[in-house]
Amino acid sequence: MTETARRRDDKAAAAGIAALTAAFGNRVVTSQAVREQHGNSLTWIPNQPPDAVVFPQSTADVQQIVRICAQHNLPVIPYGAGTSLEGHINAPFGGVTVDFRDMNKVLAVHAEDLDCVIEPGITRKQLNEYLRDQGLFFPIDPGADASLGGMASTRASGTNAVRYGTMKDNVLSLKAVMPNGEIVTTATRAKKSSSGYDLTRLLIGAEGTLGIITELTLRLQGIPEAIAGGICPFPSVEAACNATIMTIQSGIPVARIELLDEVQIRACNAYSKLTLPEKPMLFVEFHGSEAGVAEQSERFGEIARELGGGPFEWTTKPEERTRLWQARHDVYWAAKSLRPGSQCFATDVCVPISRLAECVTAAQTEARRLDLLTPIAGHVGDGNFHMSLLVNMDDHGEVDRAKELSGKLVELALAMEGTCTGEHGVGQGKQKYLLAEHGAPALAAMAAVKRALDPQNLMNPGKIIALE
Amino acid sequence: MTETARRRDDKAAAAGIAALTAAFGNRVVTSQAVREQHGNSLTWIPNQPPDAVVFPQSTADVQQIVRICAQHNLPVIPYGAGTSLEGHINAPFGGVTVDFRDMNKVLAVHAEDLDCVIEPGITRKQLNEYLRDQGLFFPIDPGADASLGGMASTRASGTNAVRYGTMKDNVLSLKAVMPNGEIVTTATRAKKSSSGYDLTRLLIGAEGTLGIITELTLRLQGIPEAIAGGICPFPSVEAACNATIMTIQSGIPVARIELLDEVQIRACNAYSKLTLPEKPMLFVEFHGSEAGVAEQSERFGEIARELGGGPFEWTTKPEERTRLWQARHDVYWAAKSLRPGSQCFATDVCVPISRLAECVTAAQTEARRLDLLTPIAGHVGDGNFHMSLLVNMDDHGEVDRAKELSGKLVELALAMEGTCTGEHGVGQGKQKYLLAEHGAPALAAMAAVKRALDPQNLMNPGKIIALE
Repeated sequence: MTETARRRDDKAAAAGIAALTAAFGNRVVTSQAVREQHGNSLTWIPNQPPDAVVFPQSTADVQQIVRICAQHNLPVIPYGAGTSLEGHINAPFGGVTVDFRDMNKVLAVHAEDLDCVIEPGITRKQLNEYLRDQGLFFPIDPGADASLGGMASTRASGTNAVRYGTMKDNVLSLKAVMPNGEIVTTATRAKKSSSGYDLTRLLIGAEGTLGIITELTLRLQGIPEAIAGGICPFPSVEAACNATIMTIQSGIPVARIELLDEVQIRACNAYSKLTLPEKPMLFVEFHGSEAGVAEQSERFGEIARELGGGPFEWTTKPEERTRLWQARHDVYWAAKSLRPGSQCFATDVCVPISRLAECVTAAQTEARRLDLLTPIAGHVGDGNFHMSLLVNMDDHGEVDRAKELSGKLVELALAMEGTCTGEHGVGQGKQKYLLAEHGAPALAAMAAVKRALDPQNLMNPGKIIALE
Repeated sequence: MTETARRRDDKAAAAGIAALTAAFGNRVVTSQAVREQHGNSLTWIPNQPPDAVVFPQSTADVQQIVRICAQHNLPVIPYGAGTSLEGHINAPFGGVTVDFRDMNKVLAVHAEDLDCVIEPGITRKQLNEYLRDQGLFFPIDPGADASLGGMASTRASGTNAVRYGTMKDNVLSLKAVMPNGEIVTTATRAKKSSSGYDLTRLLIGAEGTLGIITELTLRLQGIPEAIAGGICPFPSVEAACNATIMTIQSGIPVARIELLDEVQIRACNAYSKLTLPEKPMLFVEFHGSEAGVAEQSERFGEIARELGGGPFEWTTKPEERTRLWQARHDVYWAAKSLRPGSQCFATDVCVPISRLAECVTAAQTEARRLDLLTPIAGHVGDGNFHMSLLVNMDDHGEVDRAKELSGKLVELALAMEGTCTGEHGVGQGKQKYLLAEHGAPALAAMAAVKRALDPQNLMNPGKIIALE
């Protein structure tokens, strides 16, 4: 490809990296091991390492990096915790990975305003550890202990999204180095604003293709006075989904409502030595006052019973909640252990909740047809679910069937007014579905925005939008 | 100005309007009365009528209008209910106003998914009237009975935002005609997505400058089982603000928490023949189960008492709630009647809630210094408040002082990490503050997006971004 050829001008790249090294010394690393580690895609897309990795310590550092890279036409790829699932951090055209390892500080906590200002490299667990003493927490929790900069960039969510929203709802403002090297602050600390275009939301989910996030102002929540958690088996995925719909419709402010299908329960039973019935199960959690969570739990139990579910076991005691929720916490490792030696590819789609049962059931049918082992776990309150494809990578036929299933799942979701990814992002892996999902005019608008802000196609090229 | 001169090519405009008339017949109106009504700015910016007003009946109509206007370089100005407050619907360069009066249908309600699909001309009250039988409501409630298209375009909010968010949080997807005449659908009906740039949020708050919204998919809420409402006087604005902070911090999911200052209370007492103490008052509302709202009300009452407020009167009976909330409902007319014959200019700012008391108090002091009568009412849970400037338009000195106060208010808000508008939008009136609020690099990014999507500067030119 022309693009690849243009990018792979080794002389220009070497000059750029020399300039970076002159500026940043041993914070620029070009060893093969480090480069390969940073190109890790956690999917079946091959690793594509960058030419160098640089570790900035400030927004000014990032600005200087972007300016040097622009001069030498070197791609710039932001890197947080390396947990993205669709090849977001690969370097298909080489270039420089900007690793935020050293930018992981909490810069300010404003308890009265329920917000904090942080650097992008801090992970969600580190942040919550820091906040706990002040009775505060940040609710967005993707499976991995991802960095907050990465979570903003992929518009991540997790189990709490049904109540607290996604990254798009929980970032007040961003500081970012734009492709032209300018530093932009997208908004003030005000909780809302009608002032100008929403640059905050433009950068959230842009996967580093429009600018590099160097600071985030996040909305926080008070740690609830009481938390009730419980689990409830259902006779079918459909009954579990209907219970979820009724729960939300009736205004019960459920904080988490997670579906594990029978295959996933089997995996968890084996992995964690549990004896749960091998049926679709809902894992629920309620946040509020003591009386409030008790009332919510009782009402959920009634709804579950009405739909043939139950028994619904719940408790407010932390150890007990952990025990009940053990299967949910173990989803990833349990899935992996279901088939030792296999690779586990996590894919996700999201549909309107009224179509969720249909979508999950159709996906299960497809998996059986293709003879694949694919436990399913879903953030069912959002209509979002994950399929873990357990694949023996030495069996090329199986790899092909897994790819087929992955594509089929997206097809199903799109046919049901859904999206090809609820929370993992596009990266490289889901680019091919964007035309079907968004249509040509919307993609053209996205491309126009990309070209306007990044005419050199410097920022994480080859992700989301294919400009060629 | 070159821009004005270029736009005011009367011959080109006449040709464009002739082409529109050929296509739309008597749905194109050029009478002076109709044109002037559509240029109404509800502020001290003079009315700037368009050359014609057209009444589309479908997205295809709007597409055709945009294409004809593009051919003849005619500005296109979308018009909903005409309630915007900062000159959003003025036509400084002439052009064609697209009035959505005839596009006001509910196209679908998906009760299980808690969403609906509507045309942009329907007003919020019409929509809620339509939804009531199904036990659903749309929570965003700006003061006026605005159209939903306009509310999306100004990123509106209102009294419920503290619990339910703003328009940015309650629109799932938009259909829009882009400046190039293409029809874009910004997202699917999935509750969340990580697929591509957030075109939905890019159009929300863009005030029609990036495309014309022709359809909206909105998130809905179930009508709460119980609603409790009440009022509570406080010894000072500061005490009222501190009570608000503590209420939110302690996790009480207050649905509405509104501050009226002593001047506003005086106005309401006079207008509605009430005998409320002339002190800062909080008007609160809680949504939930019977037991839930009772508990929330009790806990709020305790917090209020701790801060020297009270007595806190509350009730779940609808008639009683209406009686207690009467003063809040009458804010606008009460303010106006405080000074018969004056014009009432509503301006708004938003600051972090920790700075709100300071900001309101400083604004009151400035108003006294400038000898102006300015009742204040605020969505205090968001740090957002409105000042109603009651101005005798025949007194030029007073008009100047009112403009000074309006500017001073923005200065105060920006100095306190706030925004020049929490929910009214920029329009023409607040353009001059954007540089101070956003900084040159952010404005440059906004301008780049505008130029990329609308190279002819066809869409509502002269609003938000000054491209010259």
